[in-house]
Amino acid sequence: MADATEIRRSADVDTYDMEADVVVVGLGAAGACAAIEACDAGADVLVLERASGGGGTSANSGGLIYLGGGTPVQQECGFEDSVDEMFKFLMYASAPGASEDKIRPFCEQSVDHFHWLEAQGVPFKRSFWKEPGMEPPTDDCLVYSGGEDCHPFAEIAQPAPRAHKAQAPHAAGAFLMQNLLATVETRPLRVEADMAAETLIQNEHGRIVGVVVRTVGEERTVRANRGVVLTAGGFIMNDEMVARHAPALSVCNHKNATPNDDGRAIRMGQAAGAALTRMHMGEVALPITIPNRLGRGIFVNRHGQRFINEDTYYGHIGLAALFKQDGNAWLLLDNETFERNFIGSEPAFVAETVADIAATAGFPAGALEATVALYNRHAANREDPVFHKRADFVQPLTNGPFALIDARTSGTIYATFTLGGVETLPGGEVVNPDRHTIPGLYAAGRTAALFCGLGYPGSGMSLADATFFGRWAGRSAAR
Amino acid sequence: MADATEIRRSADVDTYDMEADVVVVGLGAAGACAAIEACDAGADVLVLERASGGGGTSANSGGLIYLGGGTPVQQECGFEDSVDEMFKFLMYASAPGASEDKIRPFCEQSVDHFHWLEAQGVPFKRSFWKEPGMEPPTDDCLVYSGGEDCHPFAEIAQPAPRAHKAQAPHAAGAFLMQNLLATVETRPLRVEADMAAETLIQNEHGRIVGVVVRTVGEERTVRANRGVVLTAGGFIMNDEMVARHAPALSVCNHKNATPNDDGRAIRMGQAAGAALTRMHMGEVALPITIPNRLGRGIFVNRHGQRFINEDTYYGHIGLAALFKQDGNAWLLLDNETFERNFIGSEPAFVAETVADIAATAGFPAGALEATVALYNRHAANREDPVFHKRADFVQPLTNGPFALIDARTSGTIYATFTLGGVETLPGGEVVNPDRHTIPGLYAAGRTAALFCGLGYPGSGMSLADATFFGRWAGRSAAR
Repeated sequence: MADATEIRRSADVDTYDMEADVVVVGLGAAGACAAIEACDAGADVLVLERASGGGGTSANSGGLIYLGGGTPVQQECGFEDSVDEMFKFLMYASAPGASEDKIRPFCEQSVDHFHWLEAQGVPFKRSFWKEPGMEPPTDDCLVYSGGEDCHPFAEIAQPAPRAHKAQAPHAAGAFLMQNLLATVETRPLRVEADMAAETLIQNEHGRIVGVVVRTVGEERTVRANRGVVLTAGGFIMNDEMVARHAPALSVCNHKNATPNDDGRAIRMGQAAGAALTRMHMGEVALPITIPNRLGRGIFVNRHGQRFINEDTYYGHIGLAALFKQDGNAWLLLDNETFERNFIGSEPAFVAETVADIAATAGFPAGALEATVALYNRHAANREDPVFHKRADFVQPLTNGPFALIDARTSGTIYATFTLGGVETLPGGEVVNPDRHTIPGLYAAGRTAALFCGLGYPGSGMSLADATFFGRWAGRSAAR
Repeated sequence: MADATEIRRSADVDTYDMEADVVVVGLGAAGACAAIEACDAGADVLVLERASGGGGTSANSGGLIYLGGGTPVQQECGFEDSVDEMFKFLMYASAPGASEDKIRPFCEQSVDHFHWLEAQGVPFKRSFWKEPGMEPPTDDCLVYSGGEDCHPFAEIAQPAPRAHKAQAPHAAGAFLMQNLLATVETRPLRVEADMAAETLIQNEHGRIVGVVVRTVGEERTVRANRGVVLTAGGFIMNDEMVARHAPALSVCNHKNATPNDDGRAIRMGQAAGAALTRMHMGEVALPITIPNRLGRGIFVNRHGQRFINEDTYYGHIGLAALFKQDGNAWLLLDNETFERNFIGSEPAFVAETVADIAATAGFPAGALEATVALYNRHAANREDPVFHKRADFVQPLTNGPFALIDARTSGTIYATFTLGGVETLPGGEVVNPDRHTIPGLYAAGRTAALFCGLGYPGSGMSLADATFFGRWAGRSAAR
């Protein structure tokens, strides 16, 4: 197999086995949306998928899509939202390094995007599910997925739930993709499966004019008369790329991915001169405060100190635990707050008193006790002036026995996928390090860098980015 | 001016204005060492420097070079060191993501490198300066520069001081470069100043065969018969690149750089297909515990919690404060521990009691008091079981008035430079994302990624990497 970076010169290509106006590489959510839009814009579209069928990592996901500014679901469920409040939240929660040039139009056209998704056959129930964070176990739609109603975000922007799940129980990624793929089938476009893209074809002017693919061991050349759209996932399954670019993620033991998230498309883009952005970033979910009532416990680091308001989104908790506490965290619960969490964690330690559990678990002498004493002193008034947890979640931890849940990377699930990739303009045009576009080359989904900076605002962000900017990339390529 | 990424095809170059076997771009420490070695290996060498003379950021630096394993200075000062202990320290302090393939030979040949530097006319006094962290104000040589004798490193490897300063008072970077440049002048090689490299020249086989430069407004083409070595600094002075790759560094207000650290050479390398590594990383020095006795105070974050052993290297403190506390930190001192620090910080708050200073500074109710109470309880026994500060630095903070030094990014110096760059093999060969070498292209110094991972072990690391692997790059290019 050729290396991704051995770009093929068009002068070295004698004949093309296939041809289209727009060639889309990868048929996950971004690829499906790009293909539909390119086709609707009048282009002859060919989609190349490495697996035996479409879906990609999108089909393995929870299926939440972050949308707001007053969608029909938000309105019918009685939530006020606006473009400005959504924008304020996303910019704050994404900082530093957020791409304002993408976040602004994404917020402004979020309601339109909701309608477009429905028009492609993706149904959303007009209902709200009050347990925040992850996808509802029912077919309900709307959830808080980014701690919008928690500190510090509630003080920055008017809170509203914005994660929308298509109308299917539990994880709805497969259902989302079934519907998008069914819509793809209604369009006059071609999908070729079992086609592994290997490298791009570039002409003497630097323009991308095609793709080299491999199918059942044989090479095929594909000409793209208007453009190639790379929508072939991220790189979390490529250990060498993770070690080089995002070594902190290498300790995360659960990858939200398919084996094809090996960074191939990102390296193909690099070979054409693409800039890469924020390659060290990942989403990191630590899902051990689900159900959210478990946020009545307190997270502590290895020094016995709290480090976050425990009521917030488990993605904020995961990023803080991994990047700021080096993956060393514990969740302390007492007999009043303990319940079995979503993943069924057994307590690593149980003891009658805080002092006993601290000694057994090996915390520095007096440290956990001091933390609990300060917490309980304020909790008696339902206050948390140190980390600003909401009053509903604040109650003194005084009723033994106490339990410590192991929230270290070695002790529980840290679920991750990569957020860095090739740099694109809002229209999906891939740019080089001088921010000049590479003619004929487009990207979206996790092959491209997410529009966020060093923050990950909440669940549903990656599919929102993939579907919204996948559409834009498809339209741009069709021009 | 042409963009860095508009690579020039050799087919489009009619004549070359200059020619050499090896062309070195940039005459800082890495460039000087590369040029000397390439010349000594028998190559005809041409050095192109953008400024009006050599020196670069190396000449603006403190001049510390990290060397160990039993150098003559270490031996004569009575410090035992070995390759293994140096290796253990560097691997641990660099993790995760450290380049073992570079750290291993760097440790093994560190003593040889010391002798080579002396042979190039860089003198090192056989003396130790006991104040750790930064360059001695005298012409003394050896200092602890990475917290080797502090937690956690002292438990990982046998401590030894390893930062070596050339024999000149205060910052010795200029003196180091004077000597290296004088040696460059003794060699039969050419140095052309005021030559701004614009882009690389690549032939039809992908080999780098030259450089396009600009001088007094005119373009010149330079042929490199064996190789081009990029040693032209990092990118901390390029706001757009910092925003894209290392947004966390953008709040650092003191840049260890010259205006030429604009990432030009890194972008030139990218245009030739180079992989980039660890672009988000920087060195971050928070020099407010100099003199080191100030480590008897305690750093606290905005929650009033400690976060590090205060006796350690101020680079470890800076990285922890910026990356793990979002740049929010304060140094608390009492009347016994207070003294004027190196940069002359005035206390932001002064009060008679901890409770008063906490209230005045706006810490959460009771938080700072709880931290100080726990610290003092153990400090009464000269112990610090929470952060493991050495006993010499542990004394109760009980004697008012108390002072808080503002250690936020907005309140004091955070000195930074970038550590990411093009990826190289130990021999300086630049590699593409599939880890294939790009024929004819080499890099060293801050144009290349430092051999560390997400840690920065100590002062002197960047000059050590630049001089040691600059030599290797020069030798490789000369072959």
